[in-house]
This record gives sequence, C-alpha cells and structure tokens, in this order.
Amino acid sequence: MSAPAPFPSDATLADAGEFGLISALVDLFPQGEHVLVGPGDDAAVLRVRTGHVVVSTDLMVEGRHFRREWASAEDVGHRAAAQNLSDINAMGGRATSLTVGLAAPADLPVQWALDFARGFADECALVGASVVGGDVTRADQVVIAVTVLGACTESPVLRSGARPGDVLAICGRQGWAAGGLAVLGRGFRSPRVLVEAYRRPEPPYDAGKVAAEAGATALIDVSDGLLAEAGHIADDSGVAIDVHASAFDIPDPLHAVGAALGADPIQFILGGGDDHALLATFRDVAAVPEGWAVIGAVAEGAGVTVDGAPYEGATGWTHF
Amino acid sequence: MSAPAPFPSDATLADAGEFGLISALVDLFPQGEHVLVGPGDDAAVLRVRTGHVVVSTDLMVEGRHFRREWASAEDVGHRAAAQNLSDINAMGGRATSLTVGLAAPADLPVQWALDFARGFADECALVGASVVGGDVTRADQVVIAVTVLGACTESPVLRSGARPGDVLAICGRQGWAAGGLAVLGRGFRSPRVLVEAYRRPEPPYDAGKVAAEAGATALIDVSDGLLAEAGHIADDSGVAIDVHASAFDIPDPLHAVGAALGADPIQFILGGGDDHALLATFRDVAAVPEGWAVIGAVAEGAGVTVDGAPYEGATGWTHF
Repeated sequence: MSAPAPFPSDATLADAGEFGLISALVDLFPQGEHVLVGPGDDAAVLRVRTGHVVVSTDLMVEGRHFRREWASAEDVGHRAAAQNLSDINAMGGRATSLTVGLAAPADLPVQWALDFARGFADECALVGASVVGGDVTRADQVVIAVTVLGACTESPVLRSGARPGDVLAICGRQGWAAGGLAVLGRGFRSPRVLVEAYRRPEPPYDAGKVAAEAGATALIDVSDGLLAEAGHIADDSGVAIDVHASAFDIPDPLHAVGAALGADPIQFILGGGDDHALLATFRDVAAVPEGWAVIGAVAEGAGVTVDGAPYEGATGWTHF
Repeated sequence: MSAPAPFPSDATLADAGEFGLISALVDLFPQGEHVLVGPGDDAAVLRVRTGHVVVSTDLMVEGRHFRREWASAEDVGHRAAAQNLSDINAMGGRATSLTVGLAAPADLPVQWALDFARGFADECALVGASVVGGDVTRADQVVIAVTVLGACTESPVLRSGARPGDVLAICGRQGWAAGGLAVLGRGFRSPRVLVEAYRRPEPPYDAGKVAAEAGATALIDVSDGLLAEAGHIADDSGVAIDVHASAFDIPDPLHAVGAALGADPIQFILGGGDDHALLATFRDVAAVPEGWAVIGAVAEGAGVTVDGAPYEGATGWTHF
C-alpha cells in the first residue's frame, strides 16, 4: 500500500534532498491533540499533565539489527517503533510521543524511507502515540535512532523490586521472532508465521499497565533474550530466579524449526528476544493477571537457573 | 583531565563489552533532582510540572559532522550536547534531560567514548541538564544520536511569528566556527580562537529565555547557516527578510582567515553555522534586549536578501 509519492519511483535520498525528504516524511505522521508544536520548528512542544515523563532511546543499525533483504522497509518501521514502545510498556506507562533519526546512504531509495516511516507511524497508531520530530542525515549505512516519551501516572514498575517468594510470569509470544531469525539466517522463508513474527513483533501493549495495576514487583521487556532479561531482574533486585522450562507450551512452528535445524526448540524461547514479551514478578500466583503465564520463581541468592540448574545455551544478545 | 578508567588504556569497545561500557558511561552522568529513575531500567522517569515539554533530536555522523582528527572526543561531546541544548534555547525553553545513542565500530577506543561522555556531561552541566538514558551499539562509523527534553512555562517562540516591520537581531558569536572549519579543512590549526570556536561552540544559553520574555516574535538557532536560518523564518512567517551585512563587526581572526584563504570574511558570517547563535525578530528596536545586535529588517514579500540584493554565496549546509 503506497501513498502517492511526490518523487519518481527510482528517486534516491540525494535526489529528494534534505528538505524534500523531511516534507514527505512529515506528511506521514499525524499529530495527537497533546502536540502543541509538531515537526518543523527547532523542537516539538507537548502538553503534559503533572506527573512523570518516561523516556527511552534505542539505536538500530543495518546489518546488525536488521537487513534490508530480510524485511521490507515497512516491517523495519513497525519493528523500530515496537521495540521502543515496548520500553514504555515495560515501565507500566503509556507512550505518547516519539522522535526518529534516520542516517542513511545518499543512494537509499526515497521509497524505502517513506515505507519505513509509514510502518513506523502505523505501529505508533496502535497505541495512539505521535511522531513529533526527527532528523535525517547521510551515513555509510542505515542507522535508525528512536526516542520515545510516555506518561506514567502511578509509580513506575522497575527491574529492582522482585523479592524471594515472588513468582515470575510472562505475557506475549516468546521465541517466535528468534525462530524466524534462525530461519532467515539459513536462507529460508518459512514457517511464515515465525518469519512474520520476527519482521513485525506484536508486543502486548496493554500488559504493562495491567501488570502495574496488579501490583507487579518488577517488570522488563524481553528484547535481548528471556534468560538475559531475567538476569537483569535478578541482578537489580538482588535475588535468584529459576525459570521452569516445562511451563512453556512450545508452539508447533518452533517444533518444526527445531527439527529442521537440529536444535531444541526451547532454545528459541529461553535465549530469544525481539518478540518484546513482558516479564514480571508478582507476590504470588493469585496476583498474576489474566493473559500472563507463570514460568518461574524468585528465591534468595543470585543469578538465573533453568529447572534448578545453570543453563548452557545462549541467554541473550550482546551489542559489542 | 581523565577519570580513573576501569579499562586498560588501549581497550576497545569490544574489550569493554556492552555492559562494561554502559556502566562506565553512566558513572559520568550525574542525575538532577527531577530524575526519579536514571539510566539502567527500561526507561528513565522524570518529574514534570504541569506545562509543556519541549523535545528535539539530532544526529551527528563521523566524517560528516565531525572528524576524530579535527577535534578531541571531549570536544565532540561538548559540541553534540551544545547543538541539542541550543534547540531548546531556540524555543525559549530550559533544557532538563538528554538521551544519547552511540553507534561505533568495535575497535573504537573505550577512552574515546569516555572522553566524549565527559565532554557531553560537562556541556550539559552548564545549563543544569542531566543525561538520563542512552544506547550503545556497533556500527561501521561513529553515529551519535541525541534527544533533548526541556521545559517551557510560557508560550514557545516559533519560527512563524515574524511580521513586516519587525527587526532581525542576533545574539552570540557568528561565523567563528565556520572560520575554524575552513582553517581545519586546509590542514591548518590557527587562528586558534576560531578552531576552538568550531570544536567547542559557546551558545548563548540564556538568550532564548531573555528573547521570549522580551516578546520575540520569531526565534531560531543558527546551526546550518545564518541566511539559511533567516530563510526558515521568512518561509514559515510568510515574510521577506533583508540582512544588513554592514551591521556585523568582523572580528580580527576572521579578517586574517579571509586574507589567508582569499575569501571575503563576511562569507563565514552569512553562510556559517555551528556557533549556535540565536536569531530572532522583535517588533521594534526598542524591544531588542541587551546583548542582542540588530542585523536586518522584516518586510512584506518572500525570501532573504543581503543589503537589498540576492546573495550569491553559500547560504548554509545541506544534509544530502
């Protein structure tokens, strides 16, 4: 689905020029009622009520966080927005406004930038957030820099509040994107449902607020790997966390990928990120809200175990 | 001035690892009282009062916006912070919080990243703003993505409010950084005062608020070139602006560079950016605050002229 483009179909960013590109991009970003001044001045101006502003920022680098041959520009836009919106979800907040920086080679097709922006805007629309500003400039590879602002009216739920005796619970798909990425890495395109899960994650955007209201003691989103994120909660809370592998229903497509690649499918679940599921601790099973599944327990000590033993596989992703 | 480094002096980002690097960086960023949650969780949380949040974002790419051989890492940090803080200044606001994304090759020295962060933090301290979050990841070249948040209690001053009969005024050094950049581009290192002006701009951080309180009708910071920025005011306000070249006192170092490079020094002033001077329009000369110099006039029409005639030189900088 393409909007009428003001550029020839083979135009590059160099052809469009900075201001032509910005003008076309801005047209794709509707502004919410809280936006007093949107893109186009030295800064955007947002109305806020008394309370707290939640802010997070993420970088995505071509060849490292995405490949243009593995996902459409629109998919990359969805994913870039989703991983940032998810950070606000992981504080129990509500995303309101985003800025996007796009550094790209001069020969990048304008259509790629427009499709990216459309995907980005569509993902933001899912939670009612507006793209209020940005920057474009030339670089050797595509780098996408997103900052998201949100509101949280009550106390934010941090990573540091888990206590011995709490239960560990998850909400959202987990391992699907990692399965899709593994498939793409081998040059395949199916199971399609996993590839699509990698291209367009579906974070449980309402779950953060629900968890906060249910009294979650710690909350984090799974972007780098389930065990790695559980480890962040354990470290910041000063507790040990045991993850129960048997608590996961392994979906059929992950079984299929595991069989095809000769891997235990639980690896995608325990080590995978990119689905942006939410991981939380609650005081007890009774406090766990609908839609969440209990997958482990918090105890005195340190570190993360799987079924009581150290885990030998990959636990997450490192950026250097 | 180096802080005690937890890494060997020749350590690279790959040696430090993502979390080692983040931990060392976070130590360099003191948190203001408005920061409820600083770096280290899924998002930072800031206390705000009822009012408006001003937000702006900028990208800096190595080889395009800075060269490691032309400026120290600490200088690049100062400049990256300054150009963003200036955007809040240009709305008549007060910067409170920033996020920084650093994409860099794995072989970048850790010391470069630490020195960059120290310069960045020191510049932010000039206005009392805190670095509340960030991201680091690997890329082929250094890309720095900054987002700045600020507060503005009164109506922000936009680019669109200039009216025929207004006067155009400037506050801050103008042309110095462009002179320094021209010198560096020819392989020279002096006049030192200009090279330093390029490496560490000194934006007039109080001038935006002063201009707003004095009733400025339009306000912008000069980041890409004086005539280009005057053009933004003219376009957004639907007016013509004439800049009076004779209004500028050309400082001795610019005369010297002009003579050495065979250029008219007024070119650095009219086409130069990077000093982050502020450009504003006021209803009349009487409204122009102390510290500002009248350099032109607003009339009916469109576009920018110099002494009543079209300008033939470079008016600014394009990003593609």
